[in-house]
Amino acid sequence: MKRYIEANKERFFEELFSLLRIPSVSAKSANKPDMLRCAQRLRELLTESGADGAEVCPTAGNPVVFGWKTVDPSLSTILIYGHYDVQPAEPLEKWNSDPFEPVIHDGAIWGRGANDDKGQLFMHLKAFEYLVATRKLRHNVKFIFEGEEEIGSPSLPQWISDNRDRLSADICLVSDTTMISDKVPSINCGMRGLAYFDVTVTGPDKDLHSGHYGGAVANPINVLCEMISSLTDDCGRITVPGFYDRVVELSDEDRAQLARAPFDLDEYKDFLGIREVRGERGYSTIERTGIRPCLDVCGIWGGYMGEGAKTVLPSTAHAKISMRLVPDQKSGEISELFERHFLSMAPDCVRVDVRRSEGGNGFLIPITSEAYLAASRAMADVYGVEPVPSRGGGSIAVLAEVQKILGIDPLLMGFGLERDTIHSPNESYLLSQFFAGMESIALFYGYYK
Amino acid sequence: MKRYIEANKERFFEELFSLLRIPSVSAKSANKPDMLRCAQRLRELLTESGADGAEVCPTAGNPVVFGWKTVDPSLSTILIYGHYDVQPAEPLEKWNSDPFEPVIHDGAIWGRGANDDKGQLFMHLKAFEYLVATRKLRHNVKFIFEGEEEIGSPSLPQWISDNRDRLSADICLVSDTTMISDKVPSINCGMRGLAYFDVTVTGPDKDLHSGHYGGAVANPINVLCEMISSLTDDCGRITVPGFYDRVVELSDEDRAQLARAPFDLDEYKDFLGIREVRGERGYSTIERTGIRPCLDVCGIWGGYMGEGAKTVLPSTAHAKISMRLVPDQKSGEISELFERHFLSMAPDCVRVDVRRSEGGNGFLIPITSEAYLAASRAMADVYGVEPVPSRGGGSIAVLAEVQKILGIDPLLMGFGLERDTIHSPNESYLLSQFFAGMESIALFYGYYK
Repeated sequence: MKRYIEANKERFFEELFSLLRIPSVSAKSANKPDMLRCAQRLRELLTESGADGAEVCPTAGNPVVFGWKTVDPSLSTILIYGHYDVQPAEPLEKWNSDPFEPVIHDGAIWGRGANDDKGQLFMHLKAFEYLVATRKLRHNVKFIFEGEEEIGSPSLPQWISDNRDRLSADICLVSDTTMISDKVPSINCGMRGLAYFDVTVTGPDKDLHSGHYGGAVANPINVLCEMISSLTDDCGRITVPGFYDRVVELSDEDRAQLARAPFDLDEYKDFLGIREVRGERGYSTIERTGIRPCLDVCGIWGGYMGEGAKTVLPSTAHAKISMRLVPDQKSGEISELFERHFLSMAPDCVRVDVRRSEGGNGFLIPITSEAYLAASRAMADVYGVEPVPSRGGGSIAVLAEVQKILGIDPLLMGFGLERDTIHSPNESYLLSQFFAGMESIALFYGYYK
Repeated sequence: MKRYIEANKERFFEELFSLLRIPSVSAKSANKPDMLRCAQRLRELLTESGADGAEVCPTAGNPVVFGWKTVDPSLSTILIYGHYDVQPAEPLEKWNSDPFEPVIHDGAIWGRGANDDKGQLFMHLKAFEYLVATRKLRHNVKFIFEGEEEIGSPSLPQWISDNRDRLSADICLVSDTTMISDKVPSINCGMRGLAYFDVTVTGPDKDLHSGHYGGAVANPINVLCEMISSLTDDCGRITVPGFYDRVVELSDEDRAQLARAPFDLDEYKDFLGIREVRGERGYSTIERTGIRPCLDVCGIWGGYMGEGAKTVLPSTAHAKISMRLVPDQKSGEISELFERHFLSMAPDCVRVDVRRSEGGNGFLIPITSEAYLAASRAMADVYGVEPVPSRGGGSIAVLAEVQKILGIDPLLMGFGLERDTIHSPNESYLLSQFFAGMESIALFYGYYK
């Protein structure tokens, strides 16, 4: 594949850039037309890469792009999953170049989606193209590219249910995660689930003068801060009753296995520019993101946010609260527990509204499976060292659904690195990882039954 | 004065509207040119109303407009204070009409500054004009209109010090407050002081993916919420060490006197649209705003505030924290206590910055003074009932400075009502109060020595 990449590199960039230039931000309704444009462009790329057919399939939300190539029905089938939607690019002023005008410099591609997930799904398209072009393809291949991953995949489970028969496969291959480092390749064998809420605290029905009313009327910002603060205790544990009931406690052996992954706390802190880490007492940093749940406020706002000093006691305060979940926590159940608890905490002096925004369950995959071993061999060939199993802290909500509806395991061959700062300004994707990913994927096809 | 108002009403509106149309928002640097325009317009109005002279005086910040009329140096001198700057109009979408295009309907003037303080200072201009025009003026009069009241009057104390001799007077008359209701006129005999801060909590040096890092890296929003929450205890008391050391506890007698002011808690709650009030344990609602200090977050922001669900662990979180102070708390001393305490609370996992934004001391004025009694008689004539003394919860930072530098007491004849929602969208000023205010002020001149 190396030579094929060398010969076609410029075209690869051109094709990927045509995807990156489309601001397919699923969180924003203003970008609705871009979702369809991006889906249509993916359909073209699927056909050009060698698929027998490709369709833009409508759903209740953004369309799913479905593509397929049947080599021989008796061979096993690989289902590729990816997503063409991206996170909002804000704060725009922190980008060094236009997030939707990709550029290459310093050995990387820069732009929103360069890694997550346009860059990573594109590796699958080109590994597939290579196998078709060189007549090396010995599997049937199916592709699902969805447009709602960044908002929790609200429409995909239904679409998968409705198309269950067309989607039958032996394994679901996904590149939408990171590895530990390019020196220490790793394969993600578990991800966390998610429950995400928009909450609003309303005090008086209008903004008030903070001098005339301050001290006598509850300030919704102060109340919201109190409520958020009380959601975690001094040990960094979440106080929602029942929250930990289904959290699987790992055995000492499993924890020792996880601790084998190389990790340098000082490097980690340096990379983030922090003096100290913080998390649940009794767990290491790797465990805190890999096997333990957490609660983060992803956004908060209320009152006067402009320049200078406005003395206002505002009517409302808002926050976006997310919880990352681990096996066997169920997103729906946790959402109910959270909602009930948060509402029950509300003092009489305010009104509290909780709206579920998105969610999905976490999952674990067996590291003894044939697919895992094939991926491990492929990556060992490319990187020169055997990859280590790891646990990802993020969530791909829909993969637990795929596992449930189609009865197949996902396999997470992710080639992102921490330095790519996905979801943040200046997202990038190293060219070396981009190419190593294509090679690893092409080799995977060879090693997988 | 009633007949004079009737004959000149339309011109009064036109003149006032020419002030209201200038967006003199002192909190925003973009409005800098409007500050000068507004000051120049006020100088014109002073001269047209009958002043001997009027000047736009530069300061380190926005200009002060100074006007004067000398009738006879042996007569006593009234110093009128007002401010021509206004609060920001945001949130703009909540206004029923353009905040800077005033309109009259439902018996009121609507627009930013209609009451606070352009509408109220304008009553003084026209009461003065009437006295001059009808040759009834038996006092020397001086006017100070400043352009920085809403940001804590940073430049005025210095200007007053520098011009101490020109400003000598017997009483400082101010209309920048509210009365209990138009059925229950009141005179404000004390105001709270203010200390206002911009605080920033910084965690990682960039926004992070909340899945990859959540649980292991301190989220600055969560930390800010914890810090804010810990600033008050379960009894509604502020936890900053030393905060209450200088708070004057009122005698039971004084508290009984305050309790005489008519107050209907149910009406109060209805007006605000709240089910319950909240404040420091052991004090009534009137006491909580009148004689007790408080802490309010006037603004908070951080992370993703847009539509949908962005899973981000942000780099920074911000808040605007204000404290209202009572005698004998000193704004400077409280600021130091707060700053020290807030910084000391910061956990190692974040960096905390505190910036003082504005501040000023509170004050009390004697209700046995000649000026108070003259105001009381004037208002009793106009309203048909004797006004009650009250304590305002707001702050006019500079009045304590006036008291200190010029050695004269302020007298607060305020004609605003709660319904005017100053500092909020749809600020208004009742025409009946606007005219009753002019009449009361004109009568005050008659009753004051």
